Amino acid sequence: MIHLSLIGIGTGDPEHLTLQAIRALNRADLILLPRKGPDKSDLAELRRLICASHVSADAQVVEFDLPQRVASATSYLESVHAWHDAVASCWGKMIGAHRPNGGTVALMVWGDPSLYDSSLRIAERLRSRGLQLQANVIPGLTSLQLLAAVHSIPLNTLGAPVMITTGRHLRNHGWPQAVDTLVVMLDGECSFEKLPPQNTTIYWAAYLGMPQQLMLCGPLESTGPRIRQARVAARAEHGWIMDIYLLRRRDGPRAH
Amino acid sequence: MIHLSLIGIGTGDPEHLTLQAIRALNRADLILLPRKGPDKSDLAELRRLICASHVSADAQVVEFDLPQRVASATSYLESVHAWHDAVASCWGKMIGAHRPNGGTVALMVWGDPSLYDSSLRIAERLRSRGLQLQANVIPGLTSLQLLAAVHSIPLNTLGAPVMITTGRHLRNHGWPQAVDTLVVMLDGECSFEKLPPQNTTIYWAAYLGMPQQLMLCGPLESTGPRIRQARVAARAEHGWIMDIYLLRRRDGPRAH
Repeated sequence: MIHLSLIGIGTGDPEHLTLQAIRALNRADLILLPRKGPDKSDLAELRRLICASHVSADAQVVEFDLPQRVASATSYLESVHAWHDAVASCWGKMIGAHRPNGGTVALMVWGDPSLYDSSLRIAERLRSRGLQLQANVIPGLTSLQLLAAVHSIPLNTLGAPVMITTGRHLRNHGWPQAVDTLVVMLDGECSFEKLPPQNTTIYWAAYLGMPQQLMLCGPLESTGPRIRQARVAARAEHGWIMDIYLLRRRDGPRAH
Repeated sequence: MIHLSLIGIGTGDPEHLTLQAIRALNRADLILLPRKGPDKSDLAELRRLICASHVSADAQVVEFDLPQRVASATSYLESVHAWHDAVASCWGKMIGAHRPNGGTVALMVWGDPSLYDSSLRIAERLRSRGLQLQANVIPGLTSLQLLAAVHSIPLNTLGAPVMITTGRHLRNHGWPQAVDTLVVMLDGECSFEKLPPQNTTIYWAAYLGMPQQLMLCGPLESTGPRIRQARVAARAEHGWIMDIYLLRRRDGPRAH
């Protein structure tokens, strides 16, 4: 039996780790550490740093190259499914090679395994292929909380709902009537530019918790173009970018 | 100048603390520890335990009684505003008494200060009354992540949005068309009973991270009544309850 610990590690500051996460890392027989290509070597480097600082020497740390998602000719979801299949095969191979007789395997998950993360779905694939595997989640801080923290704002206005969505979903479906606060993740295309910019405030941040952290906020009309510019420059400088933003309608119910 | 650290502490397990939170607690000159009445003494007890385990002896820990919210004759929001005013006065009095010449004051916030928490709004009130105060947020795990972790589920289906809302809002506005996943917090009234129960799965948990943690999941039709029963029994036993649930439409887009 494989006990798979999916451990949320926060978003880039090793001090985002919880005590529970450190304990779980130290209980693992094997820590699998994914490499996502040379452009994202910062991300592997953070995981190495976490191991070096917080994991006793007993655990075996094994690095592996994560397959990249290939855009599908047919649909976005199909390309995601194919990618998850490939990642599952990759995990399966590493587990088979290093823990053929079972044990506890840990994976450090950026943010938290519950939010726009595939680890639970990939674990499910391994199980459905016949691997005796039990997945266990150790929650971590998400960029959602970090974004609110760096801007010192609450996510919600008083008693009101918040919607969390993706750039792709926002482009395809627009801003739903039901909410005045929208948090957008996984947006590589500045999808806020598709919205009418009036009466909206945007709170944006990138590389949350990392030394290169950036943040901007203000009326969408004037701040949107500055965010596009900052994204382009930062991506060119660092080779990758991860960002998130919150949009708030200013003509929503005055609730605070 | 008062530097106010609002420190998210997670939801009941001292191991939910991040390394950053522990560092921030130890940097404080004064830690204010609210008591919320005899029914909720467990919550004050957890904060005392955190101080005893993780804070060096240098910081001054001062307990105080938090005013209770009084239901207003006119509206829910009005009663909340009056309550925030009273809490601000209370914080102001404690800060004036113990840090008249400024310093760093810490407050441990259940979950995270960004989600259905009033600390930032109360800090803003103190500032608008003329106190030189700068608030700084240290994020913590929320019950949102804990709920997903104990059920080993992702919050979102593949690429789809999630709405976070309150029991009150769900009762007044129903389930919005725009989302198939709804997370409901602050619901003392089993508001899921107002929904058509067909084709919906509910994932519920209470006292997340605490020894008395409870969880139930299944079709809303059959699980809803069991949750009501479990809530009543647990509240009678412990004197208080904090719970959260996720609702997922089963006839939503098949996305995973």
